[in-house]
Parts: sequence; structure tokens; C-alpha cells
Amino acid sequence: MPEALRILPSIHALLADGDLRRLRRTLTRFDEVQIASQLDNLGPDEQIAILGLLPMTRRAPVMARMRYEAAAHIVARLAPEEAARLLDDLPVDDVVDILGRIDDHKLADILARIDRPHAKELEGLLAYDEHTAGGIMSPTFVSAAPEDTVADVVHRLQNAEGLPSRVFYVYVVEATGKLIGVCSLRTLVTNRPLVHIRDIMQPEVVSVSVDTDQEVVADVVSRYDLVAVPVVDAANVMLGLIDVDDVVDVIREEATEDILKMAGAGEELAEARSFSASLRARWRWLMAAAFGGTIAAISLAGFDDALAHVPALAFFMPVVAGMGGNIGMQSSTIVVRGLAVGFLEAQRLRRLVLREVGLGASLGLIYGVLIGASAFWVGADLREPWRLGLVVAFGCAGSMTLAAFVGTCTPLALDRFGVDPAIATGPFVTTSVDVLGLLSYFWLASVLLGIGV
Amino acid sequence: MPEALRILPSIHALLADGDLRRLRRTLTRFDEVQIASQLDNLGPDEQIAILGLLPMTRRAPVMARMRYEAAAHIVARLAPEEAARLLDDLPVDDVVDILGRIDDHKLADILARIDRPHAKELEGLLAYDEHTAGGIMSPTFVSAAPEDTVADVVHRLQNAEGLPSRVFYVYVVEATGKLIGVCSLRTLVTNRPLVHIRDIMQPEVVSVSVDTDQEVVADVVSRYDLVAVPVVDAANVMLGLIDVDDVVDVIREEATEDILKMAGAGEELAEARSFSASLRARWRWLMAAAFGGTIAAISLAGFDDALAHVPALAFFMPVVAGMGGNIGMQSSTIVVRGLAVGFLEAQRLRRLVLREVGLGASLGLIYGVLIGASAFWVGADLREPWRLGLVVAFGCAGSMTLAAFVGTCTPLALDRFGVDPAIATGPFVTTSVDVLGLLSYFWLASVLLGIGV
Repeated sequence: MPEALRILPSIHALLADGDLRRLRRTLTRFDEVQIASQLDNLGPDEQIAILGLLPMTRRAPVMARMRYEAAAHIVARLAPEEAARLLDDLPVDDVVDILGRIDDHKLADILARIDRPHAKELEGLLAYDEHTAGGIMSPTFVSAAPEDTVADVVHRLQNAEGLPSRVFYVYVVEATGKLIGVCSLRTLVTNRPLVHIRDIMQPEVVSVSVDTDQEVVADVVSRYDLVAVPVVDAANVMLGLIDVDDVVDVIREEATEDILKMAGAGEELAEARSFSASLRARWRWLMAAAFGGTIAAISLAGFDDALAHVPALAFFMPVVAGMGGNIGMQSSTIVVRGLAVGFLEAQRLRRLVLREVGLGASLGLIYGVLIGASAFWVGADLREPWRLGLVVAFGCAGSMTLAAFVGTCTPLALDRFGVDPAIATGPFVTTSVDVLGLLSYFWLASVLLGIGV
Repeated sequence: MPEALRILPSIHALLADGDLRRLRRTLTRFDEVQIASQLDNLGPDEQIAILGLLPMTRRAPVMARMRYEAAAHIVARLAPEEAARLLDDLPVDDVVDILGRIDDHKLADILARIDRPHAKELEGLLAYDEHTAGGIMSPTFVSAAPEDTVADVVHRLQNAEGLPSRVFYVYVVEATGKLIGVCSLRTLVTNRPLVHIRDIMQPEVVSVSVDTDQEVVADVVSRYDLVAVPVVDAANVMLGLIDVDDVVDVIREEATEDILKMAGAGEELAEARSFSASLRARWRWLMAAAFGGTIAAISLAGFDDALAHVPALAFFMPVVAGMGGNIGMQSSTIVVRGLAVGFLEAQRLRRLVLREVGLGASLGLIYGVLIGASAFWVGADLREPWRLGLVVAFGCAGSMTLAAFVGTCTPLALDRFGVDPAIATGPFVTTSVDVLGLLSYFWLASVLLGIGV
């Protein structure tokens, strides 16, 4: 069954063939997840065409299993009435996640057409920042009063109306709504009907507050191995529940975001869909590289004497800059990821910086010697080839040591000032490392080759 | 409570102060997760010192909440008797995950000292590849026969002995062990005691086979929003259960691995612990950069005439190579991450390559004009500064277009040949892009400046 996710016949190919009867028959053999995971990879026109081939009752379940960005693209393209009808059948937390990705104008149109009480609830949820616990929670959960009996709660569970589709825990709240305990279904099932919930509940509940950042929520859920975490306000009143599957989505999303940001390639894979959106996202990031490179060109212009004397210096610029860029990237990646998974602690930062710079210097010496030796060989027809070798060797070592320092400290400094450290890597680090490394290389050259600057 | 994870007093600081009485008192106020998440960030000596301050009964629960690498480091340092005693109190799947990270010699020593039946079971589990479903599953789960009644199963749940600590589903197996259905605790609690399981079970069960790769398991669990997935053999006999919290660990681990590999910084954050291990891991990756850089130097040596005529060409080498490196990194990151989260489908690859190359060429033209203009200005004292400007402009555009092509195709090609595409990025792409970009830049220079090569 799961392998099926990989070896299914391709909906895309069937659609391209144009054999709609066969396609419709094939779709009946797929489950919702199988259809959704194929739809995620298609263009919006194809997605809408395939949803249209499904019976009404299957459309909402399929949408619920798609990536939220993909579902949002579809909803934005549908007529507001049609979108509202589809969304009415989805679980509230999925609707919020989808609508949170739609522009305000379209959103108002759709909300106006959604069932009244439902719409009020949605507006309340949409008011929370989408990256906080409030933004990813679902307002439906099973609660019990401390004086309820097991039989009372079981009776409530028998009426599926208004309950979430999956229930693993019952949350015990006072009349004020204050969360005071939790009771697993296992505890419920193994106790007699007339036992009071108060007597079997567990009074320690791990909860998160409604404005907790979603990354912290993910941390808490994965550290405490939870399948659901209740969301409370400042007075500990329970407002909603976050399911572990939403947390899994958060973890994947944040990892993707971090990776793309580090490479300066925007924040969302979904953006990769529109050419102009990608152009805009990536254009901004390349500014740093273009600006830094131009600064480098202007600074290097001061060394034209050295270059005129020993043009071979230029041949080794790429390797001096490249080795620095690579080691700077290694250091900053280790720091950025270490910060993201909570691997780094503030009081051990000095050790980390020293270690990274030590690694940079050690690797710099090793590679400096190797690359310097090749410079000696390339410059064999110069008057004093060993001087070129020395300049290149020390240039590499210096550039790599500097790069390790810049690569380690930049994300740490950004993190200290509350800026996302992932944006530090990529363009910024590689560019500043290029400039610094090459300037130190040419400075070394002027000194060691005895050329006045 | 969760916020507490961030604002707790530091165990490390208390240990450094040497006030063990106060430290021991503080530890009693922490829960296992809070202690474990702080221990994860300390050195092995400190970890062992703090575990020693905890009462015996708390040591295993704390270890169970630590990162597996960190726990494995501790276990490897303890005397085998002590390690075996600690491991005897841990859930079996955690023990397997920890022991899988210990060298074979030490492992045999520990296994010999673990309780007999337990040790047999462990050896069986350790035989599975640690990156497959078998390697991360737990062999304990609650099962029922189809002819059992609800009362039978409830009775079994009342005896906690040998059952996992959390139960959300009961798996229905035939006498042969074949998995034929699943029944949630909610269904159990809402049905009468004498109802047969056969009549209330859900016959469709999403399961994974024992040799399924852990990344595919993570895919299945997150796509189907499961809290646990049963593991079966080829005959559909149920062998174990994978909990969603293990899947969360897998997702985090794989994301970290991908990020580090892309930057050529090894595969594990934990390796960052030993200086010599880091040196070895990173040394290998830099080889590509050093080798490529040397090739670049040798190839560029052919262009010494051009450099001798127009030394200003050298000033713009960093920006030509850097712009290419950055855009190559963007393209390959989008491809690597897209492949990792299943966003890319084979039949749409041609479109992807065309789009990325189109983006590279568009961004190349924009930045080529900007950087070319600055070259015109820097080269103002040359005889024909507009020629330098043209060379730089076309050099940037060419280098960026080439880089987008190489950055997109390299990971796709590796993936096609079954090699992990994450290793394609970083050193390999940036280096080949440097070499290709600069060669095309100097070739352009020779042609446009009319210098014979």
C-alpha cells in the first residue's frame, strides 16, 4: 500500500492522453492520499480538471490531503461560491491553513459565502499569526468536566457530531474553561463507567500558549513525544488542540525554508511555480553578491601594480576565494542548523568559534601547502617561482581562516539580534568571504613580492 | 510549561559552580525532557556527572529523551555492566536506536550483560538496517484476534505488563500473525463489551514493509496523518509498530543530513563534537574545491596574454565566478529539496531545466548590465572602457546561465543514477561553475578585446 505511493500509474500521463473515461476509472482505485500526492505535482489547470472528474464527496477529502500552498492555489482560482462549498466540508484547521495563503480580497469573497457560524469561527482563527500555535490549532477537541463520569464521556464520544475525526485524549476543563488535566482513551477504556474523571485524570498537562511560535510548538511536541498538544491562553483556558500531523508539516516546512534561505533561493518551494515570482525572490538575494563583487573589483583595482608584475597571481584568485567560500559555508551551515535544532547553547559559543577557526586554520594550512605547491609548478617560468607558491599557500590559509571566522560569527550575531540566522549563509557569507580573502591575498602578494601598493 | 524549555536555569552553569547540592535540588524540579534537552548540549564528562546525580529510577527515562547520538556516547563510556543495567529499563526501540550507534566490540560486551530474552529480541532488531522500517520499529504493540470481544481487549489493556506506554490502536491479526484490520481505542470505548472485534474493525490498514526506507516511512506517515504505522513482512505478518514520534526524529535527522551534505560539512551534527572527526569529514569535501581550483588556475594560465594587456579583467573575476556560484547554488538547492519532499515528478523535468536556465539567463542579463556598467566606470582610464564593460556584462550573463544549467542538471543526473543528490551541491557545483564561468569569461575577453590566445 505505501509503496503504491511510488509506483502508481501517473494521473498526469492519463490526462495528457486525454482518455478521460479511463482516468475517471483509475481515480476510483486510488485513495485520497494517492490522488492528493499526485495533484501536488501538477499545474493548477490540471489540478482543477482532475478535481472536476472526482465525485463531489471526494473533492474535499482530497484537498485536505494536498499541500496547503497547492490547495490554496486551487481555491484562489475557483469561483467564490464553489470554493466556499468545497471548504465547508473540510476540517476547520485545514481551512484556516489554506485560507491563510489567499489574498485578502478573495478571502473576503469566500468568507461571505461560507455558512454563518462557521465563518465567524474562521475569522477568529485567521486573526492569529499563521506561524503561531493559534494559527495551526484546531478549535475542536473533546473535553470533560472533573465531576463527569467515564460513562458521561463515553456517551459524548458516541455522538460523532462536531467531534474531530481522531480522538486520543480527553481534556479536563473547569467550568471557566481552565485546563486542569488530561485523560487518555486507554485510561477511559480500562476504568469502570461510574468512576469520576477527576480521580483518573493526569493533572500534569504539557500545553503551549496561543502565541507560541510554531517552531517552539514543534520542539515541545517532538521532545515530549506527544500526539497532540492543547493550546491555552494566559489564564490557562483551553482554546484548541494541535495534532502531531500539523507539527510534522511544520517541521518539514521549516527545514525547507531554512535550506532555501541558506541558498538565497527564496522561502517557498511553491514559489518555484511562477517564473516572475521566482525571479523576484532570487533577484533580491543576488543583490548582496553583485554588490559585494563590485566592491571587490573596486578594491582590487588598487592592486593593479602587483597584477601587472605577476599576472599569474590572477590564476589563483578563484581557488583562494573558492576555498574560503566553501569553508565559510561549512561553518555557517553547522551554526545555522545547530541553532535550528537547539544543538547550540549560549554558554558554549566561545568554544564553538575557537573550534571552527581552528578547523579553518588547520584545513587552510594543509590545502595551502598543496595548492601552493601547484602554484610553484605553474609559475615555473617566473624568476622566483617559490615566492608565488608562498603567496598562494599563505593566501589560501588566510582566506580559509578568515572564512571560518566570518561563517561562524555572522549567524551567531544575527541570532543574538533576533534576525533569522538562515539568511546569513549563502550570498552574504560567500560574498564577504570572497572580498576579505582576496584582499588579504593581494596584500600578502604586495608584501612578499615586494611590490609597493 | 513548554516555555520552560527555554528559560530554565542552566545545569551547565550550576555544574561549573561546583555546588552539587544545589544542582541536585534543581534537578528534582525538572522533568525528564527538560533534563535531557540540556544534557544534549553538554560534553560527555558533564553528561555522565549529571546522570550520576540523578536517582537510579530517573536515569533511564532521561536517557530515553536524549538525542540518540548523545545517549550512545554516554553508553559507550560507561562500564558494560552499568550500561546494560541502564538499558534494561529503556523501551526496546530506544535501546536499538542507541545500540545501533555503538561500535561492534563494545556492543557485544553490553549485549552479553543484558537480560537473556531481552538480548535475543535486541539482536533480532539490530539485524535490520537502521535506516529501514525494521530498524526504527518497536516489537511491542497491542493485538487482538478477530473473534475477540471488546471486553477481551479491554481486559488485556488493563494489564500494563509488556504493553507499550501509549496505545492508540489495537491491531487485528489472524492466528498466523497476518494483519487484517485495525480498531481505534475510540471505537473500542464506544462499543458494547460483547461485540466482536471483527465487526467493528476497519479492514483497510496502511502498513509499511520491514525493509522500507525510513524516508518512505516518514512520507507515508505524514501523508496519511498517522500516529503509528504497523510494519509487516512479505506475507503481511505484523512484526512491529512505528510511532509518529520516531518518524518526527527521522524527518529532523534527514533534513539536517541534507543541509550538512549540501554544504559539504559531513552528515551529522554530532560529528561536530570531535575535532579530528570534523577535520576528516570536511577535508574530503574540500578536495573537490581544491582540485577544481587548481584546474582553474592551470586553464587560466593560457590566458596570460589577455591579463597582461588588460589587468582590469582580473578585478572582475570574483564577481563573474561569484554570481555564477550563487545562482548555481540556488538552482541545485531547489532541485535537491524538491526531490527530497517529492515535489518534482519525472515527466516535468524538462520544464524545470528550461525554467531554471531561463531564470539564470534573465537574472544574468539584468546583473550583467549592472555589473558591466560598473566595469565601464572602473576601467575609465583604459583606451576603450566600453569593451571591458561588454566583456564583464556578457561574462556575468554567460556564467550565470551556465551555472543555472549545471546546478539544475547535476542533482537530477545523480538522482537518476541512484546517488544521493544532496552531495551534488556545495563544493561540486560551485567549483565546476567557477571553472566553466571563468573560462567562458576569458574566452569572451580574448574575442571581444581582440587578443590572440
